Amino acid sequence: MGKVVAQASVSLDGFIAGPGSSGFDRLFAWCTAGEVATPSAQPDRLTYRTSAETAGYLRDTMARTGALVVGRGQFDLTGGWSGAHPIGDVPVFVVTHQPPAGWVNTVTPFTFVTDGVESAIRQAVVAAGARDVGVGPGSLVGQALDLGLLDELRLDLVPVVLGGGVRMLDGVGSAPVDFGDPEVIAGTGVTHLIYRSVPTI
Amino acid sequence: MGKVVAQASVSLDGFIAGPGSSGFDRLFAWCTAGEVATPSAQPDRLTYRTSAETAGYLRDTMARTGALVVGRGQFDLTGGWSGAHPIGDVPVFVVTHQPPAGWVNTVTPFTFVTDGVESAIRQAVVAAGARDVGVGPGSLVGQALDLGLLDELRLDLVPVVLGGGVRMLDGVGSAPVDFGDPEVIAGTGVTHLIYRSVPTI
Repeated sequence: MGKVVAQASVSLDGFIAGPGSSGFDRLFAWCTAGEVATPSAQPDRLTYRTSAETAGYLRDTMARTGALVVGRGQFDLTGGWSGAHPIGDVPVFVVTHQPPAGWVNTVTPFTFVTDGVESAIRQAVVAAGARDVGVGPGSLVGQALDLGLLDELRLDLVPVVLGGGVRMLDGVGSAPVDFGDPEVIAGTGVTHLIYRSVPTI
Repeated sequence: MGKVVAQASVSLDGFIAGPGSSGFDRLFAWCTAGEVATPSAQPDRLTYRTSAETAGYLRDTMARTGALVVGRGQFDLTGGWSGAHPIGDVPVFVVTHQPPAGWVNTVTPFTFVTDGVESAIRQAVVAAGARDVGVGPGSLVGQALDLGLLDELRLDLVPVVLGGGVRMLDGVGSAPVDFGDPEVIAGTGVTHLIYRSVPTI
């Protein structure tokens, strides 16, 4: 069985989006801050250009990810990625109260899960098999942490203070939650910090 | 002239204190998580025991610090460090609306500054000479950033989620503020991230 992994581009003051949905240019500037090309499954729409260190991190993440759990907000914001998520034909589980009317899968197999985050993660774990499940971004990360289902937290820490917006982790009820020291990958415009969970003593 | 440097032990969700002033045991566990002793100026009260990497970071910080700017809350919380701040006989500027009645300096030369953070930092810069000014923790850090007076942000990032409490940076009005990529020092129970400010483009 793979791991359940949350990953987020986050500012120094802890935001995954700035005030009024601003700040994405800064939070994701590292995705195009280098010379090494890493194509997504939709290379015409998204090809990363990063430092060699970040390219290795991205290739590793993409190779290891066997399913995703995302929120309905993100699905709607992107228009369901026009049917083709950058992760390709990997199963994507969308947590929602009500499936979108008339949606038909094309490239990416989306599953709309109406009975909560825990159900979505458990279905994704089965679908991913030996590979990892990616969770997030947004409030799903804190919920997965509260459910005790998060094995790893990958922070792409961006050297900017955004001053407001949407927090990566807000009001985690199960806190304090301890992690071990991270693996650190120094990128350009980003520091990748990979925190693996440790049992609370 | 030295630099104006903010330093804070901060959780993965951005807190410098947990809910109800909890969490200090976790936030500062790294100060006693290793074998290498680094005495403060008050070694009977505070001697760090850390990894060798963190010891180097601490020695460097202590040697470079020529003055401190702290808030009244921290001064009161510690009882004015009983007159002897761990930094020793280095000048400490306390930002306050009203100086404490009857205070008499003994070891550490405290100066109570009643005309604001900017005045306190400017006085501290003069006092520090070629050495650095340490600012914080708490709301002073954001204020220094808003005043454009912060040259460096040193995050001692602790692998714990605290779920609530006092934020390191809250509502920075001058945001977005860009920094360069950090120098990273991997410790035990902490990752030291040294962000040097860069001019906003």
